[in-house]
Amino acid sequence: MTTPDVTAGAAGRNAGANEERGGMKKRVVVVGGGFAGVYAAQALERKLRGRDDWEILLFSRDNYFVFQPMLPEVISGTIGLTDVVSPLRRLLRRTHVVVRDVESIDVAARTITAAPGFRPHAHVERYDHLVLAPGTVTDFRGLPGLPEHALPFKNLADALDLRARAIRALEEADVEDDDPVLRKQLLTFVVAGGGFSGVEVVAELNDFVRNVARLYRRIDQRDIRVVLVHGQSEILPEVSPKLRAFAARILRRRGVELVLNQRLKAATAEAAILSDGTAIPTRTLVSTIPSSPHPLVDALPLPKTKNGRLIVDGHLRVSGHDNIWALGDCASIPTADGAPCPPTAQHATRQAQVAADNIVAAIDGGSLRAFDFKGLGKMKLPGWGRRIKVASSWTLDLILPTELIQLRLGGTAGATHEYFEPGQTVFNEGELGDRVYILLSGRAEVLRRRGGGEQLLTTLGPGECFGEMALLDSAPRNATVRCVEAMTVLSIPKREFGLLAANVPGLRASFEQVMARRGLPPVAEPPAPPS
Amino acid sequence: MTTPDVTAGAAGRNAGANEERGGMKKRVVVVGGGFAGVYAAQALERKLRGRDDWEILLFSRDNYFVFQPMLPEVISGTIGLTDVVSPLRRLLRRTHVVVRDVESIDVAARTITAAPGFRPHAHVERYDHLVLAPGTVTDFRGLPGLPEHALPFKNLADALDLRARAIRALEEADVEDDDPVLRKQLLTFVVAGGGFSGVEVVAELNDFVRNVARLYRRIDQRDIRVVLVHGQSEILPEVSPKLRAFAARILRRRGVELVLNQRLKAATAEAAILSDGTAIPTRTLVSTIPSSPHPLVDALPLPKTKNGRLIVDGHLRVSGHDNIWALGDCASIPTADGAPCPPTAQHATRQAQVAADNIVAAIDGGSLRAFDFKGLGKMKLPGWGRRIKVASSWTLDLILPTELIQLRLGGTAGATHEYFEPGQTVFNEGELGDRVYILLSGRAEVLRRRGGGEQLLTTLGPGECFGEMALLDSAPRNATVRCVEAMTVLSIPKREFGLLAANVPGLRASFEQVMARRGLPPVAEPPAPPS
Repeated sequence: MTTPDVTAGAAGRNAGANEERGGMKKRVVVVGGGFAGVYAAQALERKLRGRDDWEILLFSRDNYFVFQPMLPEVISGTIGLTDVVSPLRRLLRRTHVVVRDVESIDVAARTITAAPGFRPHAHVERYDHLVLAPGTVTDFRGLPGLPEHALPFKNLADALDLRARAIRALEEADVEDDDPVLRKQLLTFVVAGGGFSGVEVVAELNDFVRNVARLYRRIDQRDIRVVLVHGQSEILPEVSPKLRAFAARILRRRGVELVLNQRLKAATAEAAILSDGTAIPTRTLVSTIPSSPHPLVDALPLPKTKNGRLIVDGHLRVSGHDNIWALGDCASIPTADGAPCPPTAQHATRQAQVAADNIVAAIDGGSLRAFDFKGLGKMKLPGWGRRIKVASSWTLDLILPTELIQLRLGGTAGATHEYFEPGQTVFNEGELGDRVYILLSGRAEVLRRRGGGEQLLTTLGPGECFGEMALLDSAPRNATVRCVEAMTVLSIPKREFGLLAANVPGLRASFEQVMARRGLPPVAEPPAPPS
Repeated sequence: MTTPDVTAGAAGRNAGANEERGGMKKRVVVVGGGFAGVYAAQALERKLRGRDDWEILLFSRDNYFVFQPMLPEVISGTIGLTDVVSPLRRLLRRTHVVVRDVESIDVAARTITAAPGFRPHAHVERYDHLVLAPGTVTDFRGLPGLPEHALPFKNLADALDLRARAIRALEEADVEDDDPVLRKQLLTFVVAGGGFSGVEVVAELNDFVRNVARLYRRIDQRDIRVVLVHGQSEILPEVSPKLRAFAARILRRRGVELVLNQRLKAATAEAAILSDGTAIPTRTLVSTIPSSPHPLVDALPLPKTKNGRLIVDGHLRVSGHDNIWALGDCASIPTADGAPCPPTAQHATRQAQVAADNIVAAIDGGSLRAFDFKGLGKMKLPGWGRRIKVASSWTLDLILPTELIQLRLGGTAGATHEYFEPGQTVFNEGELGDRVYILLSGRAEVLRRRGGGEQLLTTLGPGECFGEMALLDSAPRNATVRCVEAMTVLSIPKREFGLLAANVPGLRASFEQVMARRGLPPVAEPPAPPS
């Protein structure tokens, strides 16, 4: 039952404790479990087979490999998970797979530090050759509200999360049939970014929600909106103009609205805000842009292009470093004709083979070969063959009986940031108090119903908190809070706040002081005239 | 595309706003999406078919029905989700399904209040007849550490969670091969409760971890322990003594340790504590006991037995209430021979049919019939046919390529409680500071390494906090904290604490005061002599 490789255990121990031990194997460490990393490890396994002096380690955040081009199909469930993911340990039988995030790399010491697991101590592994292939990340920083309110679409968890959110929106629209504003938000689905990924996502999302909505007795198909927002005048800049027009026609015919020459500028919990200020009411917002360098690469003292990609030579070696190689989307790799490689699986897998060949050549003192892959002609739209086939007859994809299952993933999150646009209501008088807010930037007004209208009680600025009375007293909100100047707040759920207020020395007292300082009149007294 | 039942929308609106409207349909509302609730709604759909004056609503926490007897097989993945769950909307085409928790029931006003959805306002529905079938819950309250450190096994999320945790434990054991104490915890899996559910769970969990562990290069099969803890001298009190002995033999042969005449008394993050004080080191602890009344039923002013089950008459009507019916595990239902019905799917489905018949009879003024199902003889072990077949040949179940996929569900949780036993270390000097603690009850000592031993710096009691320095300074822990008297702490993750400390008025200051009050000497100074 034990693995035949009984010496692997010793080699895996912390570098610090074992650096000096004799007879230790030399190591290639691969960072990244995507196309580039996994194909590189596989190629290395083949080339180093039967050699006792070298071993391969691969770091990956997840213990599986995702076939990225098919990821959007997870949304609609027209494809099983089996077809999209594979366990890394089955793909890489002779590689030691370490399922941890990488925290840092020390290029001088030739070590990698993994993020902590169950115990908060550092886990360090040494390397002789390093292959960097962590890919890129979707980075919403700098776009107000996107980190909190928009979903990225990069990995399997994102795809499953989007699917669960879309189902939850339908469930809630079915219940909330007496609240037309909320219903409109719930039945509108927005995708930002009209490149490959965005177009695939909006197509799958559109098919999915329109199909399953028919099972909801209180949802009218005609109330569903699916919107694609794109910054240019045509979607799919990657393909020929003819194909672009064709794809746009199919999307429109299936019910997708195209909003062109607009960018997603900001997001709130209730709307996507476009560059011209238009707000599209929605509770389900996906953004496939922008793609940024991986934070690990960002932190490395290695030569990079202006947009943060690692600079490599024709042999895929990072400039100035004999034992560091970079491939996939994290690197800027020139093709034979001088243009940089596009970020496709096709190119990544070819780079992986060349890097593996060159690493073994470097180990054995052989000569390196250049990466000269030219690409397999103009790319086709992945997966669109099937979609185009069914589009003309408007045949709906077969929905299996389980397709509608809404798994409740995750528990209650803790404190988070939230973003509000001017005019947006944080909560209404009379609603249940479910969270406390601390205003970090921007301004809000506190209003109370009075006669047929609203009366301004006070205005709040940075550092002030609100909403705490409902929690302390378990009463409904005694006022409405509305944003007047774009604001970011720290939002603390009731359960969380209760735990902290009861136990953290001084917290409750400090909240009560803030309330007193604000001078908000108690509910029983007549409110002060507006200032 | 719209549903043919175009009038359903109006009927679903909030009872408060619509109570007075004329021509409104009468309603049967079913609470619960398990066997009893779903079969009752299906029977009502058949009996009320074609009648325009009645409609059916069903409240369920999830939007799918789980075939409970097969739930343990989700752990090993030997069965697909398709075979275990079905979307409620496909099973109940003429019922309005409301996917919300029920918050309260007002028996006098005949209304049900649903828990809030996206917006924090109450959602109220009226009923004419009410069918209560919410089942029971696993309630760990009163057992120290179980709410925080033990996993229940009731629903699909529990099964998927257990599976993900088991895989994570194997991944981490594979990485942490230089920490024998942690490795032992990671490779030990404990299930408490030797009834049907516990036995099924331990059997599946055992098969699963022993199978997939072979793919981990640094895990030795012989280091894996799977333990079943049971309070009596024999497992499976529900079946005949012969079958009990047989099941015990099979479990042992497949590698499960049976710990008999012991109860699970408490749990920490690192161990299961038994009634005699034994601690079994583990990071994966499941408890299938105890089963308690659903909180909703608990809060209802209806007649109940001593153990909290609803008292019904022979027609399944709650004593003293013409329009309230109860079935399934929430009710105490006498069988023809006087003994109460066991909590099985077999009985629940028969009760559902009788309740539906009687509700329609009550509506139409017909006569009610009594529930007189005697059970289909002695129950067999569900699913054991298959297991027994494979046990003798020790054939391992086919593991599909995806079976090893570890989905990272959920995000970072917020503040939580944690429980520690005397002698247990909270953190060690030198580890990374990843959370802050507030001691709620019990006592801990703070120690620092000195020469070859440890030096006592101070002792902490309720109300004191610790671990905050590492967060404020981003430095490693400068002391070890160990429990001396069983203690409960509030544990706040670094990210959470950082958000709060930076933004909550006075919080950081109040922590710094506590630190000063404790009088812990700064790291640079020599520690005080032990007291």
